[in-house]
Amino acid sequence: MPKNAFYAQSGGVTSVINASAAALILEARKHYDNVYAGHNGILGALEEKLIDTSVLTESELAKISQTPGGYFGSCRYKLKSLEENRAEYERLIEVFAAHDIKAFFYNGGGDSQDTCKKVSTLARELGVELTAIGVPKTIDNDLPFTDNCPGFASVAKYVATSILEASLDIASMAKTSTKVFIMEVMGRHTGWIAASAALAQRLGGAPHIILLPEVTFEPEKFIAKVKATVDEHGYCVICASEGIQNAAGEFLSASGNDAFGHAQLGGVAPRLAEMVKSELGLKYHWAVSDYLQRSARHIASTVDVEHAQALAKTAVELAVAGKHGVMPYINRVQASPYKWTVETASLDDVANVERFVPPEFITKDGFGVTDACLEYLRPLIQGEAYPTYNGGLPDYAIGEHKFVEQKCKVWTAV
Amino acid sequence: MPKNAFYAQSGGVTSVINASAAALILEARKHYDNVYAGHNGILGALEEKLIDTSVLTESELAKISQTPGGYFGSCRYKLKSLEENRAEYERLIEVFAAHDIKAFFYNGGGDSQDTCKKVSTLARELGVELTAIGVPKTIDNDLPFTDNCPGFASVAKYVATSILEASLDIASMAKTSTKVFIMEVMGRHTGWIAASAALAQRLGGAPHIILLPEVTFEPEKFIAKVKATVDEHGYCVICASEGIQNAAGEFLSASGNDAFGHAQLGGVAPRLAEMVKSELGLKYHWAVSDYLQRSARHIASTVDVEHAQALAKTAVELAVAGKHGVMPYINRVQASPYKWTVETASLDDVANVERFVPPEFITKDGFGVTDACLEYLRPLIQGEAYPTYNGGLPDYAIGEHKFVEQKCKVWTAV
Repeated sequence: MPKNAFYAQSGGVTSVINASAAALILEARKHYDNVYAGHNGILGALEEKLIDTSVLTESELAKISQTPGGYFGSCRYKLKSLEENRAEYERLIEVFAAHDIKAFFYNGGGDSQDTCKKVSTLARELGVELTAIGVPKTIDNDLPFTDNCPGFASVAKYVATSILEASLDIASMAKTSTKVFIMEVMGRHTGWIAASAALAQRLGGAPHIILLPEVTFEPEKFIAKVKATVDEHGYCVICASEGIQNAAGEFLSASGNDAFGHAQLGGVAPRLAEMVKSELGLKYHWAVSDYLQRSARHIASTVDVEHAQALAKTAVELAVAGKHGVMPYINRVQASPYKWTVETASLDDVANVERFVPPEFITKDGFGVTDACLEYLRPLIQGEAYPTYNGGLPDYAIGEHKFVEQKCKVWTAV
Repeated sequence: MPKNAFYAQSGGVTSVINASAAALILEARKHYDNVYAGHNGILGALEEKLIDTSVLTESELAKISQTPGGYFGSCRYKLKSLEENRAEYERLIEVFAAHDIKAFFYNGGGDSQDTCKKVSTLARELGVELTAIGVPKTIDNDLPFTDNCPGFASVAKYVATSILEASLDIASMAKTSTKVFIMEVMGRHTGWIAASAALAQRLGGAPHIILLPEVTFEPEKFIAKVKATVDEHGYCVICASEGIQNAAGEFLSASGNDAFGHAQLGGVAPRLAEMVKSELGLKYHWAVSDYLQRSARHIASTVDVEHAQALAKTAVELAVAGKHGVMPYINRVQASPYKWTVETASLDDVANVERFVPPEFITKDGFGVTDACLEYLRPLIQGEAYPTYNGGLPDYAIGEHKFVEQKCKVWTAV
């Protein structure tokens, strides 16, 4: 009887999730008869849309490894609790059994690790031979245990580089033109991405203001800080997390009125810009990176790629060693020179725990990060893992998938 | 009597304007006793804030060459006509005379070439020994004669790479999440930058829709095209120029009501997103690159850097050869393999002429560009002119300037 493995990508994708995918497939080939990937993540298992990865050559896998986005497709689809929707979990087990899948690798963030845990638990309950291993991934960098989450370090490198470049731009224009530049970055609950902008602080301290969701946004204090910065440096560069909230716990980016009563729609950056204009009358520019930041494989961090690959490889080794319901993670041995090992945590301890930027990483005035935070971040952005180029553009993998023949009854999840 | 040269940066900066600056300084050192740079562009001449570039070593110039923004400072300061403000032109000539400046190199776009022409004309009128040479630069790519304008090709490479990456991201998320992604780029009058997004068209044709200022924006037609694209591909990627206008000639990005009557503030991307949401009910994401695109030296085009350097070097050669009131430009000899020469145009023919994306470069439905346009664009983004890195970030030059002792009376321009 064949012994197969199943890999799925989950949630918001990153620029290195395919580096995990390729490394996992290569390692799993050594131990399993077939390695299948879910088309659009866990939906691929529920709807029995299994991609046969055996047709991928090593050179194709190398190209996939340097491609951003989820090569096999990802999804935002949270399985309900076992109590609420046991049928869905049983369906997963049914599909896995039909295809002789003995190992389930779930590459995702907190929610996915929780799903992974439930599948693992149910398999044990039912006496089914199935191990479930989590492979961490999230640009939000909010998983516990791990020093950092694959995907985050490359966003950090992109954000720090981009805001450094934009700071040089505004510095040269400020005398007669733009005085305030605002860059909005991702991070609905945690400010790790916004914090990484501080790595660029060279030129006159830019970015001068970093707005984290961990710090209550106080409009008057913010405006005063902008004014003081422009008075001192001639311009002000701001990195704002999309998740900043006021004292009432309202997102600044939500539709409605801004802190000064002006009606607005849109992101955090245009709202802050409008405040700066109405309260200080200063000329501004703003940028919203959105997907660009998490798919910027062209400036990925080498450390990040190495982590993504190592965790995927270890995940396979753990499954082969008979572990289940665990997640490998990065353990920092020392910061400089950066040394790390891969360790293992139980999914019981990982699921649904969010790691925030701690108070000791935030400056007293709440508008910046401390040296301890910079020391934490610095090793993560080391090395430029450039993709190969073709005709002036990165040579990313865009492939047709080969699907495994279906054996179960039809199931429509979405 | 010494024979000195003066260089100034003008208008919106680019990721390769300092490549021009460094090349010009190196070449000018061979022919002039001193090479001065204007602090904050032409203001540096008016206010007699001349930077002495002689203290810059070749290795410092190499670092400046790979740095985005305007190293010596730029400005948005348009000199009025000779008739309206002759005093300002006379002041320039006074400062130049006081510092034995015999050659004036002005690195800018259309307005700057016009100023350069006026200075050249007045110097002749007054019998002053001063040659004025334009060095082209503008991300808008709207100068006549030249095959392309230094700064544009690197933006094109950044935009095409970024939208390719974001397209891979949304393609992997579209099944359960985002269906429409909109990226807003610069280009208030001309659509060259938006057009360059088409270079990324691989995966399912993404970007599927390109909105140029040269094409009247028709909301109903746009919404129909988005719907048809999502129906066909499952998602839709849009690149929109900030300068798109409706049939009444109103900018979409202006404050007020959008085409469907919803009140909005902010950029083009959030406005288009709101239309997509209200008319089609589709989940969207949007990005606004703003300064990031024009300062993205980390992904500059090698061809662009070579053009920026060659034009600066030729500018000096032209001055030395006794030319005045001219601008060197890039002449395309052939597209593939790309061959180019540097030719010379009179500033009389350059000043205040804007080059638009021509009709033959735009598809019939107005939502894309033709093969002829792609053939034009393709050579420009070749080669990755990576900067050197230090500690995970580009090693950009951030220096203190050494100023030349002032000799004229105080003058306050702004």
